[in-house]
Amino acid sequence: MWKAKVVVTYKPGILDPEAKTIHQALTSLGYTDFKNVETGKYFQLTFKEKMTRDQAESVAREACDKLLSNPVIQKYTFEMTEVSG
Amino acid sequence: MWKAKVVVTYKPGILDPEAKTIHQALTSLGYTDFKNVETGKYFQLTFKEKMTRDQAESVAREACDKLLSNPVIQKYTFEMTEVSG
Repeated sequence: MWKAKVVVTYKPGILDPEAKTIHQALTSLGYTDFKNVETGKYFQLTFKEKMTRDQAESVAREACDKLLSNPVIQKYTFEMTEVSG
Repeated sequence: MWKAKVVVTYKPGILDPEAKTIHQALTSLGYTDFKNVETGKYFQLTFKEKMTRDQAESVAREACDKLLSNPVIQKYTFEMTEVSG
């Protein structure tokens, strides 16, 4: 059974106010060793048993393009992993 | 220079209505090959140059415990990667 682990992040140059807030919060908690913070969304898509790796990868890519990311401001990467049961 | 790539997801048994909605949306778009969808947050923490891997890993773990995740309902994993410049 195949899983796609998808990470959606902002393209370079797109403002990420949540990340800025987290960076400031970490600094105010005393953690001053961060140079940069970025945020993103994570999705784990589990496919039905009958799907081959190639089929799953192709469907995962379409799902990312059409629903999970906004291609104007975001980019995505995913990796396929095989899991039992 | 070290980076921590953090993924925060819900613990088993915690309701994930966003994932349910995405699963339904995929189905209504004609993608009926998904058995399960889970969502989570992604954070990429870049550390200052002076930090060693051990120091960075320890700070990343504290940041996850104290700010990036809610230990009551969420779990996290992270991996350290070394980047140049």
